[in-house]
Formats: sequence, C-alpha cells, structure tokens
Amino acid sequence: MTESRIYNFNAGPAALPLPVLQEIQASFLNFQGSGMSITEVSHRSKWFDDVINDTVARTKRLLGLDDRYSVLFVQGGASMQFCMIPMNFLGKGDTADYVNTGTWSTKAIKEAEIQQKSISVVASSEDKNFAYIPKDIAFNQDAVYCHITSNNTIKGTQWAQFPETGGVPLVADMSSDIFSRPVDMEKFGLIYAGAQKNMGPAGVCMAIIRDDLLDRVPEDIPTMLRYSTFAAKNSMFNTPPCFSIYTVWLVLKWIEDTVGGLEKMAARNDAKASLLYNFLDNSGFYRGTAAGDSRSRMNVTFRLPDEDLEKRFVESALKNGMGGLKGHRSVGGCRASIYNPTGLEAVETLVDFMKSFEKENG
Amino acid sequence: MTESRIYNFNAGPAALPLPVLQEIQASFLNFQGSGMSITEVSHRSKWFDDVINDTVARTKRLLGLDDRYSVLFVQGGASMQFCMIPMNFLGKGDTADYVNTGTWSTKAIKEAEIQQKSISVVASSEDKNFAYIPKDIAFNQDAVYCHITSNNTIKGTQWAQFPETGGVPLVADMSSDIFSRPVDMEKFGLIYAGAQKNMGPAGVCMAIIRDDLLDRVPEDIPTMLRYSTFAAKNSMFNTPPCFSIYTVWLVLKWIEDTVGGLEKMAARNDAKASLLYNFLDNSGFYRGTAAGDSRSRMNVTFRLPDEDLEKRFVESALKNGMGGLKGHRSVGGCRASIYNPTGLEAVETLVDFMKSFEKENG
Repeated sequence: MTESRIYNFNAGPAALPLPVLQEIQASFLNFQGSGMSITEVSHRSKWFDDVINDTVARTKRLLGLDDRYSVLFVQGGASMQFCMIPMNFLGKGDTADYVNTGTWSTKAIKEAEIQQKSISVVASSEDKNFAYIPKDIAFNQDAVYCHITSNNTIKGTQWAQFPETGGVPLVADMSSDIFSRPVDMEKFGLIYAGAQKNMGPAGVCMAIIRDDLLDRVPEDIPTMLRYSTFAAKNSMFNTPPCFSIYTVWLVLKWIEDTVGGLEKMAARNDAKASLLYNFLDNSGFYRGTAAGDSRSRMNVTFRLPDEDLEKRFVESALKNGMGGLKGHRSVGGCRASIYNPTGLEAVETLVDFMKSFEKENG
Repeated sequence: MTESRIYNFNAGPAALPLPVLQEIQASFLNFQGSGMSITEVSHRSKWFDDVINDTVARTKRLLGLDDRYSVLFVQGGASMQFCMIPMNFLGKGDTADYVNTGTWSTKAIKEAEIQQKSISVVASSEDKNFAYIPKDIAFNQDAVYCHITSNNTIKGTQWAQFPETGGVPLVADMSSDIFSRPVDMEKFGLIYAGAQKNMGPAGVCMAIIRDDLLDRVPEDIPTMLRYSTFAAKNSMFNTPPCFSIYTVWLVLKWIEDTVGGLEKMAARNDAKASLLYNFLDNSGFYRGTAAGDSRSRMNVTFRLPDEDLEKRFVESALKNGMGGLKGHRSVGGCRASIYNPTGLEAVETLVDFMKSFEKENG
C-alpha cells in the first residue's frame, strides 16, 4: 500500500481506487486548466457539462442501456428513493410488490406504507433472520413494479439471478452492487444506488429509469421529488452534488478503461469472494452466516467462536493495517466488504491474517 | 495567485479559500492518520464524528445559537427546502407569509402552492423587476412563519436589515449570504443555505431550526423529508454527504480562526462591496442595477452601455484571469459574485481591469 494507507473493508463509505484518489488530489487546485478546483467550477460550465455527460455515457455503455433509459443523479441517498418510488409511480388504485430481504428492504416498505400506498410483501426471508434470498415467488401481475434489494450489506446476501416477474418491471436498490457485474437491463424499470459503496463518495444517488416508469410521474408532487424534473434537466434543475458526480465519473473511467468493463469487474469480484468463502468453508474457527446459494460477493459476513474473539479479531486486524471488519451493529459478528475498488491483494492479506489469528487463538 | 489559478467570480458553485483547498489536497490520501481518504472513512467513525460535531459547534459559536437551535445537514439544495418547509410546518388550517424578492422566492412560493398549502404573498418587488427589497410590509399575525430570501443572487439585492414581523418567526433562504455577517437569530425560526456559495462545495444544505418549528413536524410525511429525522440522528439517519460537510467544516475553521469571526467577515465583505459600488457610482460607463438601499454585498450586478460590450467585457476579463463575470442567463448583463472566500485583492484586480476596459472601449 502507498504510504500509511490501510486495507479498507468498510461497508460504506468505502474504499475508492487509489488511482482515482491520486487523480483528484493532483488536479484539486486546477481542474483541466480551468484555474479552479472541481469544487469551484460552475455546474453550468463546459467543464462540468463534460463531466456529467461522460458519466452518463459511460454508465450507458457499461450497462448496455438503450434509449429508453435515463441516467439521473439525485440527492438524499437510497433512503430518499424509498419515498420517491411509491410517490412517483403509485397513483390511486395502483399497487406494487416488495420482496423483503433485510434492513434496507424493510425501510423501503415502510416508506410506501407511510404514504398509505397499496403494496404487497410477496416474499420475505425474515423467518431465518434474512440469511437467504427467497425463491419461487408468486408476483402480482397487476403490480406497477416489484421492488427488490439486489445485495444486502448487513446480512451478506445477494440475488445471484434476478427473479422472473412475468413482465412486471423490477425496481432495484443496487446501492451495494451496482457496476459489480453485468445486468440484464430488460427486467428493470428502475435501478438506483447510493454512490458510497461501489462507485464513489457519499452524496449522490444514481437512478436509472425507463420511459414507461418515467411516464407515470405525476405533476402534483414537489418538483425536487419528481424523477421527471431530473430527466428533463440532465440532473441540473438546481446545483447537483458536483464533487460526488465527478468522483463517480473517475471511478467509471477506472472500471471501463483500466479494469476493462463489467465482465472483467465481475471476474475480479468473483475471485476475491471465492478466496474468502473457500477459506471460511474450510475453517472450523470462522463460520460464514449467509446461506450458500445466497452469498454476497460484496459483503462477506462471518462469526468467530465467541464475541470476545470477534472483538479482538477486529482490533488486531486494525493494528495489522486492515480496517472496517466489524459487523453491522444490528447483527454483530464480522464483515469484510470487498466492493469493486478492493483489490485481490487486500483479500489475500486478510486471509493470511485470519489464518495467523486462528493459529494464535484457535 | 498560486500557479495558474484564476480570480473566480462565479455565482455558485463559487470560489473557496485557497488554504482550505490546499488542506483538502494535502490530506486527501490519508485523513488524520486514519489511513483512508476523507471520502473513504465511515460516517459512523470517530473521524467523521469529530468533523460533523465540530462543524455544528462552530456554527453555533459563529451565529451565537442557544440550545433551542439544531444545526442540520440536508441534501437536495435550497430547492428541496422549498418543498420541505411547507410540508413540515403547515398543517390543516395553518397559513404562512412569503415575501417575493426574485427567482428563488418565486420558486419557494411555487412549492408551497404545489402542495396546496395556504400562503399569502405579503410583499413583492416584481413591479420593478425585483431591483429592490420591499419595505413597510403588513405581516399576518396568525402566520406560522414568514419566508424571505436574504440575498438575491440574480437581481443583486439583499435585506440590509431583517423585517419586524411582530413575533412571527422568519424562515430565511440564506444560501448566498450565510456567515457573511452577524445575524440577530432571535427573529429566525429556520435558516437554510445551500453550501456552494459562502461556505463550501455543492451537495449539502445547512438547516438551522428552532424548537418551536421542530415541534410542528408531522409523523405522516416521508422519513427523509422530516426535519425531526435529521435532528434526532445528528444528520446521520443515513449516510450524509461527508465530503461536502468536511469542506464546510474547513471553511468555518477558516472564518473563525483565520478571519476572526463574523464581525470581521462582514467588515471584509463591506470593504470589497464598497470598493466595487463606489467605482460603479463614479462611472459613466458601468451602471449598477440594484436600488441603492437594497444592494447586495455578495452579488454586484451591473450593465455596460450595450450587450456587445458586455460580451467582450466577460471574454476579455477571462483572458486576464477573472472568471464568472457573466450575469445570470435570465437577466443578462454582468455580475461579480464576491462571497466570503473572495479576497479584497480579487476585487482590486477586477476594478483595475474595469478601468482599463473602459479606457479602451469607453
């Protein structure tokens, strides 16, 4: 690692690619000859126009989006999307399906209920503490959309394949695995993702919306809560979160130009996750918590024999240059978040440390 | 100026203090020994806790806030506040006053109307193209609040003194003059400000709210649109826009520790504005557009004899290292935005240039 940087296994905000950080640093006082920092240029300038337009173009190329999709940059994180989705798409008499796979799905459901929208929870894995992804779901064919959470950071589960809904558009919170693998967009009416895990810093949420859902947006909700406001103005009805979008742009350049696209990104991510899961599966000391067919390639959750050992594991790892390994406060245990920017080297270093910690404490 | 940086007179995003930019750059790969960039540390970490808590503490000291006020960090810019304010404070049977002093006030009024809230526009300067701040306003004594825009970036006007409402709390959009001068907080129930003019980069909006308004927030509106959600969780119900808050923190440190507080900030700002307005008043070539008693100390709007000269003025200024002098596209003309970070030296350089441009073209 460069200088005194650590291996960062935080769940989000999370590690960013070092070349991206270095480029931000190098150009921070003078962005592309503007004589200004990227934080100082006008969002109405050619400099920022080029940034946001190329971010959209790269998103479209990476995900293979056709002209039906608009790429938007919204604020308020995924949590704001939880309320915007039912507000924008569910009018009187409309209904939507939700699949509950953990904390974030539960919050999305709650925000629809607060607005007294008609929704059905068509599947849930709450019976086993959300340790698996539900199968064989009976979707309502008259639903406007079906909401899923593609990856569950807290429980360490992920949809390996996306469900067949019989034509009902999927609306997916992909905050923690967007751009980590290719996606068959044909199934999706809306994908949204807070940037601070796989593609940037906190402060911006990407929303990729298809025409058929965009056409449903009503006129009588507040301007800043309408997807159509963002679509009509290239996300610049008002000042967008420029620095966060700029950093997303650099991360997408890194994914496309350095890594080589989403197939290669997925192969990298599979290699990292396999290394860690194989190690866990062959250990009598560490124990993975997610069901085998539902394991997340982004957040690997595991337990040690007892909580005292888990506490010492996290502390000892930090002393050895590995941060962020504590599980979410709501579930305890340990968690290694290994998003796109995390290199194989970081996971190899972690596994080596886990071996030596087991030797000393097993 | 350092390296090839320009004098930046942009209306927003706008100039930041050079020492702030340099500190961000120097620590960008390793924030305070964390081994991570500020963009990579968890918002639940001690590092970020210290940042957000000190940002709140400095805001309270600078503005002299007592315990009735909460300092919140919200996303979506001032435009999101336009909808949150009536949504949070106006229940059935409630009414509010609005003063219309230009584009931003008009938008705030529109967002209340979209929600079919009961409001009265008690004063407007639209009759003279918003070139002045209204006086002798008859406020409704049963209004829940009275909304004003403290400084109007497009028309170049500013409230020199805030109006006496007879006890009705003022709700003020201070996006373009917060922290530019001391404020008598006793009059205010809510102050909000997008960061990207006087105190930071785009991507975060500060909201300073008093208990009596906070107590009005209903439970049946979406979680992310309730001020109470942000107040209960120190603005961290979900991941906040960490980098933008961090930069605001550095700017407030600069205002408090380097400039010496808001009295001194105001004196600096008065000196800059006086220099420019005195020059305009003594010129037969340039002409200020705002009424004398309503002039903004932040945005100095002026015209040249014709539009062709204005175009050449803006282009020639940029060639001479001064950017952002074009007036807002809705009004034309020229505008020098001289927010907190802009130094007297920048305004002196601008006035010198204006003199020589007049000599060549007058």
